Amino acid sequence: MKIDILTLFPEMFPGVLNQSILKRAQENEIVDFSIHNIRSFSENKHRTVDDYPYGGGAGMVLKPEPVFNAIGKLTEGQKQRSKIILVCPQGERYSQQKAEQLAKEDHLMFICGHYEGYDERIRENLITDEISIGDFVLTGGELASMVIIDSVVRLLPGVLGKEQSHQNDSFSTGMLEHPHYTRPATYKGFKVPQELLSGNHALIEKWRQKESLRRTWMRRPDLLDKIDLSDEQKEWLKEIKEES
Amino acid sequence: MKIDILTLFPEMFPGVLNQSILKRAQENEIVDFSIHNIRSFSENKHRTVDDYPYGGGAGMVLKPEPVFNAIGKLTEGQKQRSKIILVCPQGERYSQQKAEQLAKEDHLMFICGHYEGYDERIRENLITDEISIGDFVLTGGELASMVIIDSVVRLLPGVLGKEQSHQNDSFSTGMLEHPHYTRPATYKGFKVPQELLSGNHALIEKWRQKESLRRTWMRRPDLLDKIDLSDEQKEWLKEIKEES
Repeated sequence: MKIDILTLFPEMFPGVLNQSILKRAQENEIVDFSIHNIRSFSENKHRTVDDYPYGGGAGMVLKPEPVFNAIGKLTEGQKQRSKIILVCPQGERYSQQKAEQLAKEDHLMFICGHYEGYDERIRENLITDEISIGDFVLTGGELASMVIIDSVVRLLPGVLGKEQSHQNDSFSTGMLEHPHYTRPATYKGFKVPQELLSGNHALIEKWRQKESLRRTWMRRPDLLDKIDLSDEQKEWLKEIKEES
Repeated sequence: MKIDILTLFPEMFPGVLNQSILKRAQENEIVDFSIHNIRSFSENKHRTVDDYPYGGGAGMVLKPEPVFNAIGKLTEGQKQRSKIILVCPQGERYSQQKAEQLAKEDHLMFICGHYEGYDERIRENLITDEISIGDFVLTGGELASMVIIDSVVRLLPGVLGKEQSHQNDSFSTGMLEHPHYTRPATYKGFKVPQELLSGNHALIEKWRQKESLRRTWMRRPDLLDKIDLSDEQKEWLKEIKEES
């Protein structure tokens, strides 16, 4: 997968992209990142990229020209289809399903604005996807792009080793994950549940499935509306409700 | 505001924290960041921080000991109340309201896990807040912590200059923001709306409020359920529905 990032703050990226899973994905040539400074696509001599908003008011607005130039240049002569993604609070709400869709693409381009906003003509004429990572406001699109990139790249085949399998992640099963415990069995008087120490695999599996269901019911009951529970799960849910 | 970050990947942070608004907030002594490697709080000679999960299965689990040690050490003799935040997909869904609450605190501590999960005793006994930035899975808590930090710090008094006011941000008014335009008035044949070029301030203000309402109705009608519309806004909404 090729990922191009258009930003006014290219220095924000290497520390994140060159660590951990993203670093390894690059070393294994599964993903290739290019960071582009939007400023270098400006046509005027001061490399201006923003200007006052029409109609007045506070804040500066990212001009259409450098962004149109950048996308034009970076997709020139290219045959593959590209996803051109604008990250902004008005976009489609990001989810694990969207991450899985994006993980099937060959080429992602991220446009990161900063400060007040983008000229609306960028949104209307240039992009294929508008994504919001949530109902909160960030200084720019950089962190949101990194979040999307991290969640997508870890889904690419070969990126996660067996030790970091994503099959049991929260949301992959439609439910929140069960609790985890590791040694010591007692720490400051706090004990690991007996079932996990039993060595009985069937009992352990049942405990995990039931605790995953319990956690989902307690914290995110909305997720349960979206999945078909088995008869066994329905029985557990009855027990969970009685236990609470 | 003092912010402590506990992580296994301290190198991920400086590139983000030392740019733009977060950089300026540090220079103006409005926020003070300390990054701590969880590994340095491990008691064993190999500085091990994770171990196999009880009950078997893929993935490594962050041990309780180094995290308890770190929080104990960093809050030792401290009189101020601290928010100890675990970032994970099972937490409370992050929102602008939560950002505003956190912005009133004196001391935030972030625990960033990586890979599979945390020992549940960390969650049960050590933390004050569990926050999820959305229904998707990240490699670790680092990026989610940076997202929360960015959204909180920009709300601290004195951080944003007048040019980057957050009074009109999406969600601050309960609605999505209106579109922005800057020069040129025509770019590649795409024109700026006539109202914004009119110089008539009342007309511009009305256009903005109506377009904010239109965008919210088209993209996030759920937000409109949470606010009381004025009679004028109700009238506009009727027009918007007829126009669509």
